[in-house]
Amino acid sequence: MSSSLLEQLIEAFRVLPGVGQKTAQRMAYHVLEREREGGRRLSSALAEAVERIGHCSRCRDFSETATCATCASASRDVHQLCVVESPVDRLAIEQATGYRGLYFVLQGRLSPLDGIGPRELGLDRLAARLGEGEVQELIIATNPTVEGEATAHYLAQLARQHGVRPSRLAHGVPLGGELEYVDRGTLSHAFGSRSEVPA
Amino acid sequence: MSSSLLEQLIEAFRVLPGVGQKTAQRMAYHVLEREREGGRRLSSALAEAVERIGHCSRCRDFSETATCATCASASRDVHQLCVVESPVDRLAIEQATGYRGLYFVLQGRLSPLDGIGPRELGLDRLAARLGEGEVQELIIATNPTVEGEATAHYLAQLARQHGVRPSRLAHGVPLGGELEYVDRGTLSHAFGSRSEVPA
Ligand SMILES: [Zn+2]
Ligand SMILES: [Zn+2]
Repeated sequence: MSSSLLEQLIEAFRVLPGVGQKTAQRMAYHVLEREREGGRRLSSALAEAVERIGHCSRCRDFSETATCATCASASRDVHQLCVVESPVDRLAIEQATGYRGLYFVLQGRLSPLDGIGPRELGLDRLAARLGEGEVQELIIATNPTVEGEATAHYLAQLARQHGVRPSRLAHGVPLGGELEYVDRGTLSHAFGSRSEVPA
Repeated sequence: MSSSLLEQLIEAFRVLPGVGQKTAQRMAYHVLEREREGGRRLSSALAEAVERIGHCSRCRDFSETATCATCASASRDVHQLCVVESPVDRLAIEQATGYRGLYFVLQGRLSPLDGIGPRELGLDRLAARLGEGEVQELIIATNPTVEGEATAHYLAQLARQHGVRPSRLAHGVPLGGELEYVDRGTLSHAFGSRSEVPA
């Protein structure tokens, strides 16, 4: 059949989300037929990213430095801290809204059955940070799913324990949906009209 | 915003067919969050494939050796030669049918306005091969598009000039469609009931 390197390449493409056998074949042939230079660039970008991108020690977002550019920036508002489940959610908010505060990336959500508790989400570090006294508002932007809501509830309590005002995104984000798929307008509006979490 | 390596990775993914900004972001984050090992494999498979996969000197299909495994195989029927436009079409036929003959991959189709003539498709080499006398049937499996049909017409004439019987895939392949998207059953049936091209 095909050459073995080609088969390896097709198989390797299947690691990407939503890419089955057919799509992987198309990708491999497309690169070989028309985009060898782009294939080289992708190969080295992948190798570098996988080796050199770790997590920011302050916000847990992806970063190639110990502290990410956002956390290190002098122009962000340190009084606002927005908590998201994953880096894609952080990216969606950053791209859709004019938010100038800081972030905290859980890299997950509370899920006791899967063994994901407060420690796995770095909530001890978050608590310590809230204890520092700089943060005045904790903007809770977890996904509107059952586990996301439970996580939000936990975060709101944590905020209040430290005298920090918790808020959530306004209605507008569809229930059961994933934040990263919401269109920019809706997300921006929901972010702008977030409401304080009632006690 | 994001780290620069991350931005480079997202940009690099856009070289893949059908991958826009949003999908590229998802791919980058997916690899970093869950598939670093898979990302490493993809990186090296890409680098190797792009450097080492060339074209078979006999059939013009992709190959990491001077002659591809199919052309070098002793178990293929040298009396049948199937002409396809691209390697994906060859792969689709190989996977869907029980065909045991050989292939010739045009790597395109006649398109005079784009400067793609018989020479660019290697038809001089195909003519020489038909002249060798081994091939008895030329199975023309170009796509059923306007340019594919024109190419098929040219190929049929070329075959007859060398005393080779030209045939085409049976109806069943939808007009205006692309061969690689036809389901296996249809493609297999169309391949099995190919008909000789009337003079
Ligand atoms: Zn950070
Ligand atoms: Zn070959």
